[in-house]
Amino acid sequence: MDTADPTVVERPDYSALLTELFRANEIDQFQLMMADLHPAEIAHFIEALHPHDRQRAWQLLADQRHGDVLVELSDPVRESLIERMGAEELSASTQGLEADDMADLVGDLPQSRAQQLLGSLAQQDRQRLENILSYEEDTAGGLMNPDLLTIRADITLEVVVRYLRQRGSMPTGTDQLAVVNRENVFRGVLYVTDLLTLPVETLVGEVMDSDGVVQILDTTPDREVAKLFTDRDLISAPVVDSNNRLLGRITIDDVVDVMREDADESFLGMAGVQKDEDMFAPVLRSARRRNIWLGVNLVTAFAASFVIGLFDRALEELVALAILMPIVASMGGNAGNQTLALIIRGIALEQINRHNARSLLRKELRVGLINGIVWASVVSLLSTLWFGNPGLGAVIGAAMIINMMLAAAAGFLVPMTLKRLNIDPAIASTVLLTSITDIMGFFVFLGLATLYLI
Amino acid sequence: MDTADPTVVERPDYSALLTELFRANEIDQFQLMMADLHPAEIAHFIEALHPHDRQRAWQLLADQRHGDVLVELSDPVRESLIERMGAEELSASTQGLEADDMADLVGDLPQSRAQQLLGSLAQQDRQRLENILSYEEDTAGGLMNPDLLTIRADITLEVVVRYLRQRGSMPTGTDQLAVVNRENVFRGVLYVTDLLTLPVETLVGEVMDSDGVVQILDTTPDREVAKLFTDRDLISAPVVDSNNRLLGRITIDDVVDVMREDADESFLGMAGVQKDEDMFAPVLRSARRRNIWLGVNLVTAFAASFVIGLFDRALEELVALAILMPIVASMGGNAGNQTLALIIRGIALEQINRHNARSLLRKELRVGLINGIVWASVVSLLSTLWFGNPGLGAVIGAAMIINMMLAAAAGFLVPMTLKRLNIDPAIASTVLLTSITDIMGFFVFLGLATLYLI
Repeated sequence: MDTADPTVVERPDYSALLTELFRANEIDQFQLMMADLHPAEIAHFIEALHPHDRQRAWQLLADQRHGDVLVELSDPVRESLIERMGAEELSASTQGLEADDMADLVGDLPQSRAQQLLGSLAQQDRQRLENILSYEEDTAGGLMNPDLLTIRADITLEVVVRYLRQRGSMPTGTDQLAVVNRENVFRGVLYVTDLLTLPVETLVGEVMDSDGVVQILDTTPDREVAKLFTDRDLISAPVVDSNNRLLGRITIDDVVDVMREDADESFLGMAGVQKDEDMFAPVLRSARRRNIWLGVNLVTAFAASFVIGLFDRALEELVALAILMPIVASMGGNAGNQTLALIIRGIALEQINRHNARSLLRKELRVGLINGIVWASVVSLLSTLWFGNPGLGAVIGAAMIINMMLAAAAGFLVPMTLKRLNIDPAIASTVLLTSITDIMGFFVFLGLATLYLI
Repeated sequence: MDTADPTVVERPDYSALLTELFRANEIDQFQLMMADLHPAEIAHFIEALHPHDRQRAWQLLADQRHGDVLVELSDPVRESLIERMGAEELSASTQGLEADDMADLVGDLPQSRAQQLLGSLAQQDRQRLENILSYEEDTAGGLMNPDLLTIRADITLEVVVRYLRQRGSMPTGTDQLAVVNRENVFRGVLYVTDLLTLPVETLVGEVMDSDGVVQILDTTPDREVAKLFTDRDLISAPVVDSNNRLLGRITIDDVVDVMREDADESFLGMAGVQKDEDMFAPVLRSARRRNIWLGVNLVTAFAASFVIGLFDRALEELVALAILMPIVASMGGNAGNQTLALIIRGIALEQINRHNARSLLRKELRVGLINGIVWASVVSLLSTLWFGNPGLGAVIGAAMIINMMLAAAAGFLVPMTLKRLNIDPAIASTVLLTSITDIMGFFVFLGLATLYLI
């Protein structure tokens, strides 16, 4: 293995290649290629298969890799594969998984299967796992791995190095050793690089980092953990309980996963899709899962229709109103969405506080006013030319300016209010916002028209 | 420093605290607190300030921290601060920055200032910097840091350790040393943890990882780099040219920044906002930057109005059509956006290929059909009750089913087509999709009504 000369190749699209081998039934080649890939890559490939092909690909994958790939799969795909695995098969394939990965897996299993799996573990492993499982999945405690090396402050670097050589290995991704006292109270960390560069006779206590180090409380939400890692360029960080006792460590690879899921959730949430939706889920399940927001949207759409219905006389007299009214609603929705996205991002970055909220709102209202005036002029002119009715042009112009300012206000207030109600603004804001801009757009435009044109 | 006993505190909201100290003019306290924060945290705080306060906060920040904070600031805020810095001040504050951070900074400066800054560097540093700057910012070459330790394969671990102790330090975040031959051709990597756990008399060549290691080609796009790091849980990776010569390394902290920017761009892009928009940018600048999508949206809104205008006779005869038509458009837009978000994510994860594209489209059409039937029944019933017109109920039901299937098709085809045209689907898809669902919704509904009701 180690003598092979690495050569530079453009990374081929492994997913397409694998799929071709799989479909052509070139089993040997297929298995050779799978052996070269990392678990996450195999997981991507399996997720991109049609459900009835996944089972076969899964069986072609070497048994000893099942565990690592399970960890990387998205929840619905993982569940569908585990459903068909026997108890022994599952317990065999999850042996050797890191404790935090194992906890992730067990946490998503149905109660009975989780008990089965826990029962198959050695006493000590089971206790460690149950300890992690006692935390919410989205906290530092749920993310942490209890595998870590601890040392005392009163020994020299030489002793540490001798101990490590005797041990013969370190947990993957170890960039620091935790320094604890006799009661397992966290004192600081010793960087692995310092072990290699500083004089061997130095005491750990003299060179450990205790002041600048971030120890993370076990109950810290995972988003907060991700923020700490990004802001401070961490590779790993110790996790402690409220008595500062060391519990485990969080590593950057798990944090990267949190970030990716979070971004996914916001992105899909803005469009009214739940995270973890399997692209190839059965049609009925997908249809059902997406119905929540379609239902909410229908209620708001009927509310808008109801508002339009208030002005049926005006619409009967002047059909141009029906023709033009979607423009007012649509431009308001678009402008409001721009404000909305900025505010949601500002909330996520914790950049909006009571000192600047007011001036932000004022700014967005001004942007709404200016862009309202700009586009209202265009629309006003075009409408006047189209229908030869300057009054209509004036009314639609005024309605657009008002609606774009309302949209700016809604784009600010909707996410701020959801945030205060502890609802994730990324999930529910868009539908709420567009219903406001639709309803207000129709109301203002048809209302002004009734007052001045009819 | 090192004797302080670390204590566990809930992390206070530093941003709010800092803002209060700043506004209360408690300069000493403010500066003490800033000294404790990391550059990214100070950058977040400054970005959340109103522009006229940023300059003052900047001056209160210790000079030697200016460089690190500049690196973390978003482009528009950074530019506004640099504008006011003298050439010497800028060159002093950027001394000691890592080469990749420096390249980021210089790459965004106006030509003349970049030249000034480059001119102030020592010959060797300038050359290294110009080398990075010769790459596109969004490639592995633009991300890499040329600072790395290299060793030869034919020495023992003991020699390596002795060399490191003499050197006395390693670049931050070093988890592996690159092994190269005399011609600087990359041969493999030696993990720092192996240095500490394996017998000292071992030869580097015997234990280096050459087969399983990912060396990244300098021209690889940064998204691809991020994918590799996430899929393979990397902490750092060597960058090579097409002759496999070692150029530098990429570290996870820079990759995390790429991921964050990417997620930001998609999220804001879906709402028609350009990334890097400064929340507190001057009103006029913000207004102008947002006008592109408002303009596009206006064109499509007028197109929808034009379609409605084709059916003015029908609208005059049956005002209920005007009242109900937004429902058809809105439900189509909502359903289409759900498909759209899933497909955009699938494209980003490279999970859509020519083998599964067809069955994905088929699935989305079926979901559209089922949810179309579900919600069309509801709308059909309510419309019939509202207007006492079963024919109208039938027409709106049929129109909704057709439009929701069209929406599913558009949600699939719009991003796939943009992708083929090399346009980022996350940026332009939403506006295109909703214009299609609006136009088709109005056309189908009013068209069917004209055929069967008028």
